[in-house]
Amino acid sequence: MDQSQPMPSRVHVTEVGLRDGLQNEARHLSTEDKVALVRALVAAGVREFELTSFVSPRAVPALADAAELVAALEDVQGVHWSALVPNVRGAERALAAGVDSVVLFVSASQTHNARNVNRDIAASLAGFTEIARLLEGSGVEVRGAIATAFGCPFEGDVDVAAVGDIARAFVDLGARRVSLGDTTGMATPPLVTERIRHLREVAPSLSPTLHFHNTRGIGLANVMQGLSLGIARYESSIGGLGGCPFAPGATGNIASEDLVYLLTEMGIDTGIDLPALIEASGLASRLMGRALPAQVSRAGPRLSLSDGDAVATARG
Amino acid sequence: MDQSQPMPSRVHVTEVGLRDGLQNEARHLSTEDKVALVRALVAAGVREFELTSFVSPRAVPALADAAELVAALEDVQGVHWSALVPNVRGAERALAAGVDSVVLFVSASQTHNARNVNRDIAASLAGFTEIARLLEGSGVEVRGAIATAFGCPFEGDVDVAAVGDIARAFVDLGARRVSLGDTTGMATPPLVTERIRHLREVAPSLSPTLHFHNTRGIGLANVMQGLSLGIARYESSIGGLGGCPFAPGATGNIASEDLVYLLTEMGIDTGIDLPALIEASGLASRLMGRALPAQVSRAGPRLSLSDGDAVATARG
Repeated sequence: MDQSQPMPSRVHVTEVGLRDGLQNEARHLSTEDKVALVRALVAAGVREFELTSFVSPRAVPALADAAELVAALEDVQGVHWSALVPNVRGAERALAAGVDSVVLFVSASQTHNARNVNRDIAASLAGFTEIARLLEGSGVEVRGAIATAFGCPFEGDVDVAAVGDIARAFVDLGARRVSLGDTTGMATPPLVTERIRHLREVAPSLSPTLHFHNTRGIGLANVMQGLSLGIARYESSIGGLGGCPFAPGATGNIASEDLVYLLTEMGIDTGIDLPALIEASGLASRLMGRALPAQVSRAGPRLSLSDGDAVATARG
Repeated sequence: MDQSQPMPSRVHVTEVGLRDGLQNEARHLSTEDKVALVRALVAAGVREFELTSFVSPRAVPALADAAELVAALEDVQGVHWSALVPNVRGAERALAAGVDSVVLFVSASQTHNARNVNRDIAASLAGFTEIARLLEGSGVEVRGAIATAFGCPFEGDVDVAAVGDIARAFVDLGARRVSLGDTTGMATPPLVTERIRHLREVAPSLSPTLHFHNTRGIGLANVMQGLSLGIARYESSIGGLGGCPFAPGATGNIASEDLVYLLTEMGIDTGIDLPALIEASGLASRLMGRALPAQVSRAGPRLSLSDGDAVATARG
């Protein structure tokens, strides 16, 4: 643990279930169903969303309704809507749709970046310059996201310097926030410490967000490490929606309700109401037609006590 | 996080899957299958087992072969075999079977203790005196286990003083170790800190073991808290075997391979080989005829890299 920063008393949770959660799911939700889920999350107190991606509908059909989704939520006030954009065309669409921020994403490993967006890291960064220019003066914020920031499923370990170099490039683009993506669940507490310390050295103006996957079961242990480093921004997905298409049974993002449960029990304010969040997770589960990996939604909050008779019978 | 104790460099993991894991499972393993699983775990480097319970075979039929199991493992050297005993009769059977230690268990909440062993806490503790007398001079160690140490599914919060009072009673019985059981997954990082600090005050001669369930997804976050407090003993179950009979889908104990993965990645020595442990988990899954909740066994260790072509196909 690192005590150089105090534990945050307030944490910002960004809901990424509609984007990272849905993009790999076999079942595609209608825009109407997505809107219902978002509204349930907003009712629970969620105020920051990574809502969708303005990517090619052919590449990610589940998110083909990006513009319609943003439009359908126009009446919702006090919420920040963010969307991923891969290129200038996507940025133009996002700008027209009326998002609050665009997220420019690149992998810290060449192999993953090539497989994901078919170009090398330098070419991705060069493309970002054009996007940033397009958005100048639009009022739409530019944010960065670094995929495979803790390891690459093809290359293995990822040099912390590669993460730092990309972070500096995001600073040059005018970004104030960068998300470190644990794309396939390779983050560990020592890697969290190493990467955060390095970013604080090379890009001190950036506020880092931690985006963990629970692929190997230690997503919330990594959050504990992040908290001990004073990090107050995390990304999670309702119900733990998502997963990894090439690792059956492996979970995807850490579940929003498990994260909010942990933070709330630690006395850290998230502005999110846990029972209402669990209700939203129930809706997500019904919409997807399957149980989701989140634990708190199955077991209930800590003090949801058992009915004695039912338990006695079950122990039989 | 609490920095009053240094992070341990070595952690002892006690495997409780054969006891806590199997006791509630619908499928009962044969003694032969249990032996095969134990041998696979020993081959992976596991050296401490809570192997079974010497309880009434009618109450827990899955563990009816307690004596046969201990006998079948007589040839295994350098391993500590522990077993739960509820009463003098159980202690006599455990003594005859040849275990290394017996675990005396009592709940920190009256309601749970009454439902579990049909008597109040004082009556449980009084019974322990007789057991301790029986074991005097036998060479069999007496250990304590406190169930519902972080909360009771019937009563809710459990006063830390109740845990401390039981711990002191265990000291009087000659115990040097006590396990704090998170029976239904109600432990949180602040409760871990509160309970450990209290035990260090009122029973400083006791070495506490932390026994977490992952019912609400934060089992390993609680381990992180325990590590920050300098606690070097944890109990877990292979594959996350077990679960809660009255909460379908809720996981039971934290999974041994997820725990060992976390500790190993943190540079903490467990003496356990992760790939071999994952193999043992595969055996447990085959024996139980179902997927187990452990994550690392699904995803593989951190640097088990993907085959590029397979991934490209899966990403479609």
